[in-house]
Amino acid sequence: MIPQQNRLWWEREDLCYKDGNLVFSGKSAAGLINVTGTPAFFYSANRISQNLERLQEALSQLDSYQIYYAIKANRFAPILTHIKKTGLCGVDICSPNELLHAFSCGFTCSEISYTAHAMTNDELRLLADNPDVRLNCDSLSTIRRLGQFCSHRKIGIRVNPAMGIGYRDSETLRYSGDKTTKFGVYREQFEEALALASKHGLIVDTIHFHTGCGYLNNQLSIFDEILEATHWFTDKVKDLASVNLGGGLGVPHDEDDVNLDLDSWVSVINKHYGGKGLTVCVEPGDYVVKDSGILILEVNTVERKQQTDFIGVNGGFNLAIEPAFYGLPCEPVVLEQKTDTLKPVTIAGNINESLDVWKDNFPMPDQIKEGDLLAFINAGGYASSMMSNHCMRGQVSENIVF
Amino acid sequence: MIPQQNRLWWEREDLCYKDGNLVFSGKSAAGLINVTGTPAFFYSANRISQNLERLQEALSQLDSYQIYYAIKANRFAPILTHIKKTGLCGVDICSPNELLHAFSCGFTCSEISYTAHAMTNDELRLLADNPDVRLNCDSLSTIRRLGQFCSHRKIGIRVNPAMGIGYRDSETLRYSGDKTTKFGVYREQFEEALALASKHGLIVDTIHFHTGCGYLNNQLSIFDEILEATHWFTDKVKDLASVNLGGGLGVPHDEDDVNLDLDSWVSVINKHYGGKGLTVCVEPGDYVVKDSGILILEVNTVERKQQTDFIGVNGGFNLAIEPAFYGLPCEPVVLEQKTDTLKPVTIAGNINESLDVWKDNFPMPDQIKEGDLLAFINAGGYASSMMSNHCMRGQVSENIVF
Ligand SMILES: Cc1ncc(COP(=O)(O)O)c(C=O)c1O
Ligand SMILES: Cc1ncc(COP(=O)(O)O)c(C=O)c1O
Repeated sequence: MIPQQNRLWWEREDLCYKDGNLVFSGKSAAGLINVTGTPAFFYSANRISQNLERLQEALSQLDSYQIYYAIKANRFAPILTHIKKTGLCGVDICSPNELLHAFSCGFTCSEISYTAHAMTNDELRLLADNPDVRLNCDSLSTIRRLGQFCSHRKIGIRVNPAMGIGYRDSETLRYSGDKTTKFGVYREQFEEALALASKHGLIVDTIHFHTGCGYLNNQLSIFDEILEATHWFTDKVKDLASVNLGGGLGVPHDEDDVNLDLDSWVSVINKHYGGKGLTVCVEPGDYVVKDSGILILEVNTVERKQQTDFIGVNGGFNLAIEPAFYGLPCEPVVLEQKTDTLKPVTIAGNINESLDVWKDNFPMPDQIKEGDLLAFINAGGYASSMMSNHCMRGQVSENIVF
Repeated sequence: MIPQQNRLWWEREDLCYKDGNLVFSGKSAAGLINVTGTPAFFYSANRISQNLERLQEALSQLDSYQIYYAIKANRFAPILTHIKKTGLCGVDICSPNELLHAFSCGFTCSEISYTAHAMTNDELRLLADNPDVRLNCDSLSTIRRLGQFCSHRKIGIRVNPAMGIGYRDSETLRYSGDKTTKFGVYREQFEEALALASKHGLIVDTIHFHTGCGYLNNQLSIFDEILEATHWFTDKVKDLASVNLGGGLGVPHDEDDVNLDLDSWVSVINKHYGGKGLTVCVEPGDYVVKDSGILILEVNTVERKQQTDFIGVNGGFNLAIEPAFYGLPCEPVVLEQKTDTLKPVTIAGNINESLDVWKDNFPMPDQIKEGDLLAFINAGGYASSMMSNHCMRGQVSENIVF
């Protein structure tokens, strides 16, 4: 058993070892699995509330703010209804089915912000019919076509400041930058976008941008530069009532990461958009749910191949795609601590693809046996929402824990 | 209209332009969409049969052979039943649910080959109960645990020749190589694997290997080396009745690729495993289905952003993951040819992620308008089978065309 003071980097009150057993949201993780079996996702309702409260507290330094939780990170219905009941935020939506789903989970139109790319006419008609939904148009085509279905509607324009931000400055996770991306209206087309809106009697009251995912303290100076660049746009909007900074707030993914300092983050926001009578909107996904979730899998194979010790588990990258494709690990941890001796192992999933590896050459307790359970942390965001039934190995339960 | 003689690289009898309109499996692609709407996958039953017949013809140069179609490439039930009815092959399966699914589509146990990684005990019990299914064990752990549930069962051993092969020598698509992978039994552990099998009364009659995906003619010399390396294993198996070479046969993905020459391919096989009284098994997935499928999407956004011309369509990488993550493009083609003037465009999907781009800076007819239809070719393999409902944009129909 590991002494309590030797806390691992990810341990916190609702996810930690007590007497050598992993405790999740006040409950024994092994006990949870007794009910559900594996593979299973568990989400801590409390952690989600805490993440939202922490955000709210930081943002309350501003005159006016609004949080929209980006449900693309995790749309599990019990999570959405739990979030609705906290009363702490609305939701950010990016497709007609997400809109209907959020509605079905209890959110009303005025609590919904909608930012999508490549919108169809049917989608625009749905939005025209629901004027209380806050719509951010990400191209001139959207404004033009929306204008055919309604007028006098308030809209936001998603702009592209041509600068990006992402976890450890990753390319994949940046949504704008040197290369022209599909998102938003660039400076070059912005005046035309405003003219188009006004021609169709649409009132632009929001400027929106979202420039990447997973940023931490190291990226706050880029965040500052991005906000600086957005004044060019906001200065030109006469009816401006709010500015939406998008999502992208990151959480630590391994030992070397530290928590995003929300006070520093809000200082940057305040510097640019404080004291202007504007409502500052944010739409975090990962920050709200990622660290609330764990995925528990069972070890079925322990075997040395050549010089590598492999641990095979009953779930693969189809359940959580980020480790294999985005360079964002879900660190594996044992449910039961039996030793403090570590050895490097490679933990592999059960999909017939060579990239289906959870962790390569990673130090784990050296007594892991077939039948043991492993929890993969940070499995609350962009895991189940992007999951597939590849190799028909997609059966997994999702569970909220109060 | 483009003159008939100016054929594009991918045109063939059942996928080509006639009078400027895309004809798929003898039917107008636009007509198909009239019934289904978009997004929609269409699979040509004839093309699938032809692909299998071509394989069969090449393999018939060998004394004895057996094809198992790898359903992980596409498990759409009508495709499986169509393949069953051709009588040309069995199926390669990699999970319990795939087994049940193949059974539900008409395949019997003796037509099924099973090769999975990180098998659970339940999975092994299912296989123990179905001795007619040909099981390839990919680790010592599997052999040991299977031995607890049955004996006198014939098994194959998946071996790892420590060499890999893949489309344009891609790393992601190689299943073995310098780095130790999770798949199969290496030389270092092979004698122990044989001893374990014999201890449990299991009869090893097959050696199996699968070392990568998408290989074409340029990789045939590596294929030759891999087969050379496998003799070390096959020579040691006294009851050897068959050798399974896995899948991995590729199809052209762009203009620079040429069709795999099956005669050369079979020559390599013959050189190593011909005239030995062995049954040669292969388990192609992509080769059978990939070029049988197209995905039709509708253009909803045509817009210049900075210096880039973007075309937005109503489907994204969640419907076909290979272009975004595996470097395997699904080339977009127009349904209706209106001009032969081309200009470079970037075709983007409707998912809120910057990597959701179908084709970057790609020459397309310069008159594409909102409302036009595009077909993405080579969408028959590893598209729908890996698809997700990310952003809840996963609604797509699948259709077999006879
Ligand atoms: C427009 C928009 N807003 C918010 C988000 C949420 O991002 P994150 O989960 O990184 O906070 C995304 C993610 O893709 C997005 O595209
Ligand atoms: C063991 C095995 N056999 C066959 C295949 C089929 O491969 P392909 O579709 O490249 O032919 C795969 C693919 O992952 C596999 O893992």
